[in-house]
Amino acid sequence: MGKKIIALLTDFGLKDYFVASLKGVILSINPEVSLVDITHDLPDYGLPAAAFVLQACYRFFPAGTIFLTVVDPGVGSERHLLLARSERYYFIAPDNGLLSTIIDAEKAEVMEITGENYFLTSRKTSFEGRDKMAPVAAWLSLGIDLSELARPAKSWKKLDWPGPQITDREIRGSIIYQDKFGNLITNISQPLITSFLNSNRGSSLILLAGRKKISEMAATYSQSPPNKAFFMINSLGLLEIALYASSAASLLGLSPGDNLVLKLE
Amino acid sequence: MGKKIIALLTDFGLKDYFVASLKGVILSINPEVSLVDITHDLPDYGLPAAAFVLQACYRFFPAGTIFLTVVDPGVGSERHLLLARSERYYFIAPDNGLLSTIIDAEKAEVMEITGENYFLTSRKTSFEGRDKMAPVAAWLSLGIDLSELARPAKSWKKLDWPGPQITDREIRGSIIYQDKFGNLITNISQPLITSFLNSNRGSSLILLAGRKKISEMAATYSQSPPNKAFFMINSLGLLEIALYASSAASLLGLSPGDNLVLKLE
Amino acid sequence: MGKKIIALLTDFGLKDYFVASLKGVILSINPEVSLVDITHDLPDYGLPAAAFVLQACYRFFPAGTIFLTVVDPGVGSERHLLLARSERYYFIAPDNGLLSTIIDAEKAEVMEITGENYFLTSRKTSFEGRDKMAPVAAWLSLGIDLSELARPAKSWKKLDWPGPQITDREIRGSIIYQDKFGNLITNISQPLITSFLNSNRGSSLILLAGRKKISEMAATYSQSPPNKAFFMINSLGLLEIALYASSAASLLGLSPGDNLVLKLE
Repeated sequence: MGKKIIALLTDFGLKDYFVASLKGVILSINPEVSLVDITHDLPDYGLPAAAFVLQACYRFFPAGTIFLTVVDPGVGSERHLLLARSERYYFIAPDNGLLSTIIDAEKAEVMEITGENYFLTSRKTSFEGRDKMAPVAAWLSLGIDLSELARPAKSWKKLDWPGPQITDREIRGSIIYQDKFGNLITNISQPLITSFLNSNRGSSLILLAGRKKISEMAATYSQSPPNKAFFMINSLGLLEIALYASSAASLLGLSPGDNLVLKLE
Repeated sequence: MGKKIIALLTDFGLKDYFVASLKGVILSINPEVSLVDITHDLPDYGLPAAAFVLQACYRFFPAGTIFLTVVDPGVGSERHLLLARSERYYFIAPDNGLLSTIIDAEKAEVMEITGENYFLTSRKTSFEGRDKMAPVAAWLSLGIDLSELARPAKSWKKLDWPGPQITDREIRGSIIYQDKFGNLITNISQPLITSFLNSNRGSSLILLAGRKKISEMAATYSQSPPNKAFFMINSLGLLEIALYASSAASLLGLSPGDNLVLKLE
Repeated sequence: MGKKIIALLTDFGLKDYFVASLKGVILSINPEVSLVDITHDLPDYGLPAAAFVLQACYRFFPAGTIFLTVVDPGVGSERHLLLARSERYYFIAPDNGLLSTIIDAEKAEVMEITGENYFLTSRKTSFEGRDKMAPVAAWLSLGIDLSELARPAKSWKKLDWPGPQITDREIRGSIIYQDKFGNLITNISQPLITSFLNSNRGSSLILLAGRKKISEMAATYSQSPPNKAFFMINSLGLLEIALYASSAASLLGLSPGDNLVLKLE
């Protein structure tokens, strides 16, 4: 089996007492669990970024990993806490849409957390990550029966997650994420492009973003003309706008939310 | 028992070789210990922030946890290194006030570190975290007898930690911490407010900070009027000024050190 | 023996999915390994800073530690991936110079990675850290035979790493690193200064940096005049320009790459 892992993803930052509080609570319940930080530097209350980062890496973790994801502008309100179970993983999060894309992708079973006996406090709290979600994750890592912690959920929130649109002449998509290097990741996937190319003709693909036109394509970062933005299929299988050893976002003045058109010329 | 934990809190940042050096030293002595980062992003030489963050989370860690806290503007000077032992925990720090509030709260026994034989070097060094405190923490985690490492201390530095003042008509306090979200945490505790309310009459509590007047109170972040600062009892039991899904500090122009008056209207 | 450690050093930052992907891959192969972050906050594509930070801390880690170091502007190109083995450690990195100073210092045996069977994919990828280097590090931590993973390398890239020059009257060096506190670390080592002092005469050492002249020397940070830059031998045995409880870099307007002259007056 190997050791149980709890992987943490929050917008808590690393300067305060928040993340350490989660870890202390978890290790008090299960001192043998391995804690892995995915990131804590999400934008404040940044649900789309949280969903994207989780989507981008969860499938590389060992089977049995519990993902504890706390981005929670609604803390203390009446929204439920969710526990989703897929074939390989567990996911814990507030019911605010954070998990909805994963639930779809993993065909996960969705539950709402009810195990008040396992909370640090059953009172209303402004730190449900510490007081409710962390202990549930820790007890789950000890192998407690799921029915002790949660019951089937009837519905849950969906994230407003933009999907690309394909017409007979172009693909309309958008930038969904900007990474540390200034690379711009889009919602246009490799299979979508393949399907588009199979039903269209033209000499070469071009990408239009506002008035910018990007016509260079490369297999990887190092195989591109210097000082010139290009597009590529990145390691997630998504169309990405990049610039060798520099920031495409700065050069082009583009950012998440901006719309794109991919077409043949 | 479970695994021994050493929890680290420093102002070393994460971009340099400092934290990794501590961890390498510790794991060389005790490869089985669990290392947990509380934070390394304290303000440079920021003793009050360090004391606050430690206070805010230490009690959530398992019994036996060793807190290695290195904020040390006096490194290499003649000040002692302290080892404090409470009923549940150990704390290691330079004798500069960092631990004084914890020592009081935990009624901890205070020792000064003398175990030169366990240091990496007994010479003067400009990196006592690596050369002295980390090895002492690691040997302690192996269960070495305390008398090998330290002897009772006669005195130690107190942090100049502002306390609130309660009069018959108001509580005078101050902002002691600003978190990542821009929430402003004060030194006014829930029991103090309860005691104040028991001996005073008025229709509602208001908080005055300079010329700002905050009159909204909420139970949690999500139960507050949008775009309007409010105050609440936070998850640490302290009065906190907050703003739903935004920064109260930016909206109000307040920061740690600013004075406050809480009164009844 | 103790647990195997994989220590990570990258320029991936902590806000994205990159580091978590490496960790997920490693833990999927070897769930028992200990992961230690050296830093992920290197400047983008910052090979000299990466080499410096690694040099500054690797020797404090337990024997057997595997250093997985991914700063890789050439990802996806034809450059090799290296695996260097010294008496105590393993180092994995792209062949771009990152490891060259360590290879020299440790007299390490240099291999190029060939173990395609152990990669997540043998296809060209724009994330070789995740797809090639992380799995190789994980399999190595499981004790797989080195010949399965790599073969002797005939040559490898050297980093353009500035060395100091000593003449009969002065030492000419440069600033090679600026830490979080604004301390400026130079390439002038204690043995070099000792050797210089043995063959020269003068009343006191002075350090010239552009038009700035620094004439104060101190044993450690806390033993220096306030508000005045000084130089010292730091905990790495290197000449460092510092300022008590403040930033020497800001005060002096100096930064990595700037030249220095150390002489006797």
